[in-house]
Amino acid sequence: MLARHLRETLEAQFDASLGVLTELLGKHRRKIRTRLPDLGQRRRWFERLLAGAVPRLLRQRQPLQAERALLTALGESAQGPGEGSVVLVGAGPGDPGLLTLRALRALNEADVILHDRLVSAEVLALARRDAERIEVGKQAGHHPTPQDDIHALMLAHARAGRRVVRLKGGDPFVFGRGGEELEVLRAHGIAYEVVPGITAALACAAYAGIPLTHRDHAQSLRLITAHSRDCGAPPDWRALAAERQTLAVYMGVAELGSLQAQLIAHGREATTPFALIENGSRPEQRVITGTLADLARRAQTHAVVSPALLILGEVAAFATTLHWFGAAPLTHADLPSSELRSAA
Amino acid sequence: MLARHLRETLEAQFDASLGVLTELLGKHRRKIRTRLPDLGQRRRWFERLLAGAVPRLLRQRQPLQAERALLTALGESAQGPGEGSVVLVGAGPGDPGLLTLRALRALNEADVILHDRLVSAEVLALARRDAERIEVGKQAGHHPTPQDDIHALMLAHARAGRRVVRLKGGDPFVFGRGGEELEVLRAHGIAYEVVPGITAALACAAYAGIPLTHRDHAQSLRLITAHSRDCGAPPDWRALAAERQTLAVYMGVAELGSLQAQLIAHGREATTPFALIENGSRPEQRVITGTLADLARRAQTHAVVSPALLILGEVAAFATTLHWFGAAPLTHADLPSSELRSAA
Repeated sequence: MLARHLRETLEAQFDASLGVLTELLGKHRRKIRTRLPDLGQRRRWFERLLAGAVPRLLRQRQPLQAERALLTALGESAQGPGEGSVVLVGAGPGDPGLLTLRALRALNEADVILHDRLVSAEVLALARRDAERIEVGKQAGHHPTPQDDIHALMLAHARAGRRVVRLKGGDPFVFGRGGEELEVLRAHGIAYEVVPGITAALACAAYAGIPLTHRDHAQSLRLITAHSRDCGAPPDWRALAAERQTLAVYMGVAELGSLQAQLIAHGREATTPFALIENGSRPEQRVITGTLADLARRAQTHAVVSPALLILGEVAAFATTLHWFGAAPLTHADLPSSELRSAA
Repeated sequence: MLARHLRETLEAQFDASLGVLTELLGKHRRKIRTRLPDLGQRRRWFERLLAGAVPRLLRQRQPLQAERALLTALGESAQGPGEGSVVLVGAGPGDPGLLTLRALRALNEADVILHDRLVSAEVLALARRDAERIEVGKQAGHHPTPQDDIHALMLAHARAGRRVVRLKGGDPFVFGRGGEELEVLRAHGIAYEVVPGITAALACAAYAGIPLTHRDHAQSLRLITAHSRDCGAPPDWRALAAERQTLAVYMGVAELGSLQAQLIAHGREATTPFALIENGSRPEQRVITGTLADLARRAQTHAVVSPALLILGEVAAFATTLHWFGAAPLTHADLPSSELRSAA
């Protein structure tokens, strides 16, 4: 009951396209009654309609196509599967409170959810109870599902008339191969929508108290990954080492040593502050701070594990004063006393 | 009734901290009954408690401080205003469906909302009906509220015991001066939280069908603004003009001409695709595509106005094939025929 209430209220409040749908149905009411005189028949048709292309096209702000689809649906027999579709959804960093309302609606409506390994259990718990959940995607050290298999799964389920959610950690268009997945859907004529998500850089910054830009310190923000060795040219280290910018690095912890060496070699000050955020936005969040010269050693001392995000730049120093979530950052003063002695 | 249901369900489903609060109250049940034997008195105390520091500290994952605050509240008289606080909230790009669940909760609970001019009416409509709404902040061509006045408003309302939401377009930590606002709150001992939002680059990319990174085209994403002339060093044009990266430029339309000239002068190919997204994610969204050599002229031809976001890089070309929301992009073929003749 409550879940139904919630869903209806959310849809009514947050989706203006439902008002348009009501108008559209009103406009064709007479035609619908003539074609489907039986109430039960009409109800089944209506349920199919709500699960199909018409509401999607209205959300996509394509009212003429929506009306055409409505008239087509009226002409067709009420048998056979409806039209399948895929919603590419960003699940955010883990805290289910960082899902968007659109993401929640897509999860409520999905028949099948193809989700990355890193999507949190709390987020998956918000999906329709009887939705089929299929874990796909990559994580360092595990057997990844090949990208081609993900494509094949999306196509097969959508072609069977199911509403598929492709649920990706963070945002689907930031280091997520979401573009490649849409290219496949487009090539095969499957309808799709995209729901952006809170990417790790934004989530970790907010939950660690680190403004990513700041008038006095950084006028630009750069999102990079160290996982792109197989993708062409080496990084432009000189540009990455430039001052007055914030770097948000999506990476495995293993790459920190070479990142530190390259940035210092290309001119970034060894005293540049960093904050390393492990499990950002989750209850077990840890923030480790320090300076670039000490980055790899600090990560090792505190045994930081993936998923972790690195924020490098003057703004990272704000973590020690502006933090507000969970435990205070681990600063140099928190080192085990044996290490402090050896550092002294 | 529905709104209350909604709020309760949202809180129960999406905030694990409420379970912890129930446990905490259970643990001290006997103490609470002894101190407040009258049911009405206990109810008033409980309402005050729910509006105050204890739930906030649990959301901030600080259980020990929360228990201390509970015991303090039990010792105090039930008179006087509660403790005020500020939630810095990212409102996203305009589509209310892109609000996060945490942002919605903060809007539901706020006594006062200090919002930027650019926050959409649809988003503001989701706030508590009797919340005081105060428009602050900057927009080109309007009289801005000085930043110091925003600080003074936040402090005054929080000190009066109110729950303040500081509602900013997009994400509060990306070109938002959110850091400065937290510094002021911290200096004056006001409690705060931060709720990240979908920043314009992510929203516009998702709604225009443009993957911001792509294995074959761009391994990094750079967020810059052209509105930072008063903030120190000139941009590092050579780094900005580098290939194989995507630029997302938050800017006024007036700056497009000099941006185009500088990027080409510093080596970015004149044939690099761009997409200019006006009113991204809103029903009236327009996407104008072209190549860097033509950027300023195309913007002028189509009379693009702010707020607009520029995405520059090979990935911008995907807008013409992967678009799914609203009208198709205005490509060169859509030019008025007179202009086509003069271009030919």
